[in-house]
Amino acid sequence: MKVLVIGAAGMVGRKLLEKVAAEPGVLGGQIDSLTLVDVFAPEAPAALAGVSSSKTVDLSEPGAAAALAAERPDLVIHLAAVVSGEAEADFDKGYRVNLDGTRALFDAIRAEGLKAPYCPRMVFASSVAVFGAPFPPSIPDDFFCTPLTSYGTQKAICELLLADYSRRGIFDGVGIRLPTICVRPGKPNAAASGFFSNILREPLAGQEAVLPVDESVRHWFASPRSAVGFFTHAATMDTSKIGPRRNLSMPGLSATVGEQIAALERVAGPKVAALIKRVPDETIRGIVGGWAQRFDGTRARELGFTAESSFDEIIRIHIDDELGGKIGG
Amino acid sequence: MKVLVIGAAGMVGRKLLEKVAAEPGVLGGQIDSLTLVDVFAPEAPAALAGVSSSKTVDLSEPGAAAALAAERPDLVIHLAAVVSGEAEADFDKGYRVNLDGTRALFDAIRAEGLKAPYCPRMVFASSVAVFGAPFPPSIPDDFFCTPLTSYGTQKAICELLLADYSRRGIFDGVGIRLPTICVRPGKPNAAASGFFSNILREPLAGQEAVLPVDESVRHWFASPRSAVGFFTHAATMDTSKIGPRRNLSMPGLSATVGEQIAALERVAGPKVAALIKRVPDETIRGIVGGWAQRFDGTRARELGFTAESSFDEIIRIHIDDELGGKIGG
Repeated sequence: MKVLVIGAAGMVGRKLLEKVAAEPGVLGGQIDSLTLVDVFAPEAPAALAGVSSSKTVDLSEPGAAAALAAERPDLVIHLAAVVSGEAEADFDKGYRVNLDGTRALFDAIRAEGLKAPYCPRMVFASSVAVFGAPFPPSIPDDFFCTPLTSYGTQKAICELLLADYSRRGIFDGVGIRLPTICVRPGKPNAAASGFFSNILREPLAGQEAVLPVDESVRHWFASPRSAVGFFTHAATMDTSKIGPRRNLSMPGLSATVGEQIAALERVAGPKVAALIKRVPDETIRGIVGGWAQRFDGTRARELGFTAESSFDEIIRIHIDDELGGKIGG
Repeated sequence: MKVLVIGAAGMVGRKLLEKVAAEPGVLGGQIDSLTLVDVFAPEAPAALAGVSSSKTVDLSEPGAAAALAAERPDLVIHLAAVVSGEAEADFDKGYRVNLDGTRALFDAIRAEGLKAPYCPRMVFASSVAVFGAPFPPSIPDDFFCTPLTSYGTQKAICELLLADYSRRGIFDGVGIRLPTICVRPGKPNAAASGFFSNILREPLAGQEAVLPVDESVRHWFASPRSAVGFFTHAATMDTSKIGPRRNLSMPGLSATVGEQIAALERVAGPKVAALIKRVPDETIRGIVGGWAQRFDGTRARELGFTAESSFDEIIRIHIDDELGGKIGG
């Protein structure tokens, strides 16, 4: 099979490629060609060197999408996006990349299908940012999309296009609304959500971390390993069971910061947990206060998507996958 | 004030202009200029001749939206759309007019605002086609948009843009999801929904009409007079009370075909009601079977939008407004 991964240089993209390298059949068949695309040159794991090619492409540039669709991949995994903060700060760039770039990809696939029959699987990374406060205590699968950011608006629009293009048989689409991924590997970053990972990752590496909010703050999580599983499952599942509602809130774990810290203490001990320093930040408290705390996720679970059921598990996955099984840096 | 009406030659557009001619202050102030736009030359009522100008414009053509926005209207009422059946049959035309045309209008207003401060009221005609079956018995205000047509998809996308552009202060938007308008004036048409009006309008004019579905079929209605009221209210209301959820399912009346016919008999007598001929049509039964039967409409009512509470009232409005108060043709 031919596979196209757009946004292959990002965190989820890289983890997905590691998974494919370790389990070559995980995307549903033998891979004959794997095209990796991003605005920065994506790297393929060594095990995939024989079949993969890397391209530095901005999907929103004229002709870019058509060139990718011309390869007629059987599976497209579209992870690329301008992130939330940048899409809010730069109106034109956010709409150009997140909306026009995605629509160009969808239309390029349609144009291929008009030349000769063609209907690839299209797996699209959406976000719980399609929802906006006020929320019910648990957000049901039929809750409306009222985003409060331009990023969330762009994702919600692409979800609508994904469903309509799938209904018309242009491609066979699945939209994946990701929970907040935790523990994110790598360096601490300045994203408002960064502390949810920082307060686990840094202490596990023997470093101090800053907690800017109260321990009562509740949010919605899945591990990077679950995120990869969402995409491999969406790539291979029987989509006849989805029906016309193609966009799915993924399963996850609802937990408070206090529950995160208690799990860290159970898994790694009190000395590690003591590396978390409380430094309240009103700005971050304000931003996070409007975020969703819990999703129902029934539909996605019934369709075979799975995630963690405890924060201990999420922390152990980080220790296994990122720290070689060892705590303390 | 300067007013721009796009889609002014359609049924709702014409009725709205008649209302403005009869009540010059109904849009919130004295009208200094009224620009009427449609793909067919719109006609202004005689009373508005002094201030109005008509333009034949396709909003999706390059430069068209910018020329309209350059007049810097205080109020834009955007009613123009390729209808449901045509948007389904012609993919490119539907997306070009209903999505790209509307986005071009929104972006042209943004471009004006980047030149000098500008934030007009934008009233957008959406549709209950943004919703898709299966439905709960009454569709709540927070039910998700999962359209089952390209038309509904295009309207849902424009709703998302309307909310995001309003949130950013580009314009002050209100999206109006219209119920099925009944009794539609004019000739019987071939739309699948046509019979809901035909079975009232034609008998009231002394003509036979065909009923293609069972009397148990339930649907969601408002009169043309209510539709005009939705737009004049949206043009003049205090939008600070709406909050970020800018798109509203309008109030309406849930009624079965049997209740329609009973009302016709009460208002016009059994001889008139006897002009309805039952000719079952499986295709129309199938289409209508997937339609929404009832909306909650609480938010819109709390914001001051009103509609009829009985079908007798809807029929009397038709007799008053279209038949000069007389039954029988």
